[in-house]
Amino acid sequence: MSLIVVGTVAFDSIATPSGKADRVVGGAASYIALAASHFVKEQELISVIGEDFPNSFLTMLESRGVGQTGLKCIQGEKSFFWEGSYHDDLIGRDTLVTELNVLKGWEPEVPEKARGAQFVMLGNLDPTVQLSVLNQLERHPELVVLDTMNFWMDIALDSLLKVIARVDVLMINDDEARQLSSESSLLLAAAAIHKMGPRTVVIKKGEHGAMLFEDGNCFYSPAYPLDKVVDPTGAGDTFAGGFIGHLASLGSTSWEAKKQAIVVGSILASFTCEAFGTERIASLKKTEWQQRTKYLRELVRVNPVTTDEG
Amino acid sequence: MSLIVVGTVAFDSIATPSGKADRVVGGAASYIALAASHFVKEQELISVIGEDFPNSFLTMLESRGVGQTGLKCIQGEKSFFWEGSYHDDLIGRDTLVTELNVLKGWEPEVPEKARGAQFVMLGNLDPTVQLSVLNQLERHPELVVLDTMNFWMDIALDSLLKVIARVDVLMINDDEARQLSSESSLLLAAAAIHKMGPRTVVIKKGEHGAMLFEDGNCFYSPAYPLDKVVDPTGAGDTFAGGFIGHLASLGSTSWEAKKQAIVVGSILASFTCEAFGTERIASLKKTEWQQRTKYLRELVRVNPVTTDEG
Repeated sequence: MSLIVVGTVAFDSIATPSGKADRVVGGAASYIALAASHFVKEQELISVIGEDFPNSFLTMLESRGVGQTGLKCIQGEKSFFWEGSYHDDLIGRDTLVTELNVLKGWEPEVPEKARGAQFVMLGNLDPTVQLSVLNQLERHPELVVLDTMNFWMDIALDSLLKVIARVDVLMINDDEARQLSSESSLLLAAAAIHKMGPRTVVIKKGEHGAMLFEDGNCFYSPAYPLDKVVDPTGAGDTFAGGFIGHLASLGSTSWEAKKQAIVVGSILASFTCEAFGTERIASLKKTEWQQRTKYLRELVRVNPVTTDEG
Repeated sequence: MSLIVVGTVAFDSIATPSGKADRVVGGAASYIALAASHFVKEQELISVIGEDFPNSFLTMLESRGVGQTGLKCIQGEKSFFWEGSYHDDLIGRDTLVTELNVLKGWEPEVPEKARGAQFVMLGNLDPTVQLSVLNQLERHPELVVLDTMNFWMDIALDSLLKVIARVDVLMINDDEARQLSSESSLLLAAAAIHKMGPRTVVIKKGEHGAMLFEDGNCFYSPAYPLDKVVDPTGAGDTFAGGFIGHLASLGSTSWEAKKQAIVVGSILASFTCEAFGTERIASLKKTEWQQRTKYLRELVRVNPVTTDEG
């Protein structure tokens, strides 16, 4: 088992300027696992659900190689539920309802067979759960990627810093990078975050693309330009799943592989933005994402600047 | 005379989180002309100043090939003055003082020798002044580039739309593109603006780079990542000057040349952001901007994505 994915598997009710979706399957780990399944044949999901969770989704995950030994189902309880409403800019959003349900007091268990995993994706979640997963591993994996958000910086910074110190890649958005580092320049923010532990920093900028920082090098990928964003929920998780899925499939953590993984993550995230829920990323075809990958290459292609004057 | 530049030549008092600058030389045309002077040996400046304007700046412009037959100096009057204060994000800003002074009632005069110019840069200014300049030209130039801002959309939309209908390239920022087109997607905004006249649309996104749209093609350049932005005043004008200066020096309006011109504009603008006023863009060396151009190429360089799975 080379890849394990930790995160929520849940229900979301979402309102955006494009419409509404009521109690669709969501959660960070759902998006991550589906995105990664386009690259790896096997992975292990560590999460928790209630008895209200649809079996059809689990069957679909299983058919895509997502192992569920580490997925705990608690009878008599309900799955995690989030309801939110996006502002017109599709960036700001208001949380209307958060029902933790099965997440309360959940202690993750990494299945025996997955404790030697080489690639570990810690999806956005309580940092104490993320720490518990790391503590159950046999040795430090080839690559541990951590995704988190400002919510945990606000209420659990100490635990979060402990996880950050133990991961190879920290993945956050630009505002969060500024909050965590107290730096306004993203270059300086990345430098400050390196000092907290992670050799590699990924800063997600939504429609403005993503940046990768490692060993003094910097790579930038634009986002795939969309005519219309229907729902950005899960875009960051999809990005994370594409990123680690690509690296796990190559079995590589090289700079070149990571740059490609940023492109893959960006492209996959663009599909998630085009519809509510996980269906678009689940139904995605290889030819579709490859076509967008080619488009993104062309988007930044330019001959070296030559001048007559100067 | 292959390039003419129209815009303000003025004084600015600016406060940013980094400090203050009191009555430094600014104005769209000052930045444009200085940026373009790194590429073309000759250009003609169309603007207006008062008797308070320092001769030293004009002498410096002249030494860089900026002709001033079309620069009117009105005795007994004062130059245009703007005072503003930037918010912490260096995007929002409050205008504290605007003294139009010599701009009131100014009618631009294009010198005889410049009426056949092949490249025309209409810097941000009252659209009736921009129209007057176009009306004085012998024929439609090779390329007319228009820079404008939301202020003119708010108070002079009819005149602005008349100018927009007559130019080849419209250059605005992302918020302005959305305002002008009533589209939230930049792809759709560019498509709507094409229908207003311009074959080519340039959308400036500040620290997030710039996009170029033409004939169904799209090009994207990131901004040069900076450790610190001291003052963004004039960055858009510098971008415009680098863009048209590069094209005028090549004598080309091809898609490839325009893509390079976007890169050149982005790089030059990064220098303007690093200090108050025009001194940084004036003192810039070729080796300095070329080095950043190479960095920007490397920043987006990635091998094609290959996969083992799929």
